[in-house]
Amino acid sequence: MRDYGFGVDIGGTTVKIALFKADGELEEKWEIPTRTEDGGRHIVSDIAKSVLSCMERRGALPERFLGIGVGVPGPVAGDGSASAVNLGWHGEHVAERLLELTGLPARVENDANIAALGEQWMGRGRGAASLVMVTLGTGVGGGIIVNGRILSGAHSAGGEIGHIPVEPSETRPCNCGNCGCLEQYASANGCVRLARDILSSSCKESALRAAPELNSKVIWERALGGDELAGEIVDRFCWYLGRGLATVADVVDPEIILLGGGVSRVGEPLVERVTAVFRKSAFPACRNTPIAVAVLGNDAGIYGAMRLLLVD
Amino acid sequence: MRDYGFGVDIGGTTVKIALFKADGELEEKWEIPTRTEDGGRHIVSDIAKSVLSCMERRGALPERFLGIGVGVPGPVAGDGSASAVNLGWHGEHVAERLLELTGLPARVENDANIAALGEQWMGRGRGAASLVMVTLGTGVGGGIIVNGRILSGAHSAGGEIGHIPVEPSETRPCNCGNCGCLEQYASANGCVRLARDILSSSCKESALRAAPELNSKVIWERALGGDELAGEIVDRFCWYLGRGLATVADVVDPEIILLGGGVSRVGEPLVERVTAVFRKSAFPACRNTPIAVAVLGNDAGIYGAMRLLLVD
Repeated sequence: MRDYGFGVDIGGTTVKIALFKADGELEEKWEIPTRTEDGGRHIVSDIAKSVLSCMERRGALPERFLGIGVGVPGPVAGDGSASAVNLGWHGEHVAERLLELTGLPARVENDANIAALGEQWMGRGRGAASLVMVTLGTGVGGGIIVNGRILSGAHSAGGEIGHIPVEPSETRPCNCGNCGCLEQYASANGCVRLARDILSSSCKESALRAAPELNSKVIWERALGGDELAGEIVDRFCWYLGRGLATVADVVDPEIILLGGGVSRVGEPLVERVTAVFRKSAFPACRNTPIAVAVLGNDAGIYGAMRLLLVD
Repeated sequence: MRDYGFGVDIGGTTVKIALFKADGELEEKWEIPTRTEDGGRHIVSDIAKSVLSCMERRGALPERFLGIGVGVPGPVAGDGSASAVNLGWHGEHVAERLLELTGLPARVENDANIAALGEQWMGRGRGAASLVMVTLGTGVGGGIIVNGRILSGAHSAGGEIGHIPVEPSETRPCNCGNCGCLEQYASANGCVRLARDILSSSCKESALRAAPELNSKVIWERALGGDELAGEIVDRFCWYLGRGLATVADVVDPEIILLGGGVSRVGEPLVERVTAVFRKSAFPACRNTPIAVAVLGNDAGIYGAMRLLLVD
């Protein structure tokens, strides 16, 4: 009986690995460093060793394992080959190599997608057949679940919510090369960028002008503390995010929308403001779609990776 | 052996009905009037009569039929109840009534969705597992197919592409109540609206100023004939449509995007202009997604309705 599996989430500095029961119970989790040297060619063998040593330590037979689910920080092509600038990977055949090294079948997906799948399986999206999750970090990542499955897209670009065009007047390019992407405003970096623009175009007083470092945490703290200009900055941030989420809802109409990533730690004040904009911008039928903060945090990826082994 | 089925597409003035073989061969098609009087309560029984009389005429046993697939011009709730302002329907249980009246099982979906499914099955999207179809008529309709299935959404609002917000500066409301929806620019009505705005804000000469009637056909004809101002209007039209499609591609990343509806009769000049804008706005990975004109025309709906009976 195959009642165990491994969920692996490869990040730029550490690889998170977890042993799960098939029912979603997390038995054990640990981390190993991500060795990005030599074009990242040690990463997969390091994971294989770590997995094998866990099995050995537990005296567990391979027959008990569904396999290894893996999330990578980059696009995964239709043939399963993964690319990730941060790891030095250009079309790495992760699943084949893991099978070779461990004897266990493996499935590989993009990390934003597995985070969404993890939240849908065991997190804030439990019970929902469809959801959209946006990860508000340095950039804006996105994952979409429809009928319990990841919407990967024909070119691994499904859920690239950070790059929907939201500002026609933008002249400075996004990392992707386009201008006016959601990520240019509704990410941690975007928040700072909005702050710089608003601070320089206004002559209002603000505690932010004296802040030793301008980051999204400080901006939100000042806004919630009553600083008027900081309030304008977060309103603008939420305006972009709320309209972006309304756009996504008009396209895929999910049961629930989840916010994850560093900026989501703001919690309710963020959810309230974004929801207010969302309700004014979304198509009437999906205007009441709940927006909530994701709950699995950094573990969403390992949960989603394990879940990959359970959905066909 | 169940090797036949009926595809039914209910419109505001006529109901299209077709007898299909399960392999997609269209055996026979005809139309009956849509009787919208008395809150549209005769529509389903008219369809049942028409279907039964076809079976009788052919001496075909019910055992040979997969059932009746139906497209309706409005949202279909999760429980199968259909609403349609044009028909006077508010939560009509179409499938239950058809089963009662004909003995055949029925499946019901929104008409924009079945048009997309029809094109994916037997039209321009044949061979593609995923596609997005936008219908450029009086408004902008949308249907999304992922893994060969309709993306209906949690509130029947999946694929409501006409209502994604594309113009933050808009102050006049769309039919849906929001401001700046794609449909306000990239539909036949939207094209006329853009024309009025551009004609009144410019003092350039244009043959359109003397046109007895301003409609999207005339505007495109003049633009393709070299009229400069008409050219500006269609460029603006294509700018909105291209950016809207780029947005949808960044979310669902389909294999192909199809344009249907009256405005799509413009053909290649429309496709070329929209594609040029799309390539500048879409996320790099999906920048080369083909955009093409749908081929089944008004029959897309009956094909898609039949297809409903074949996908689980």
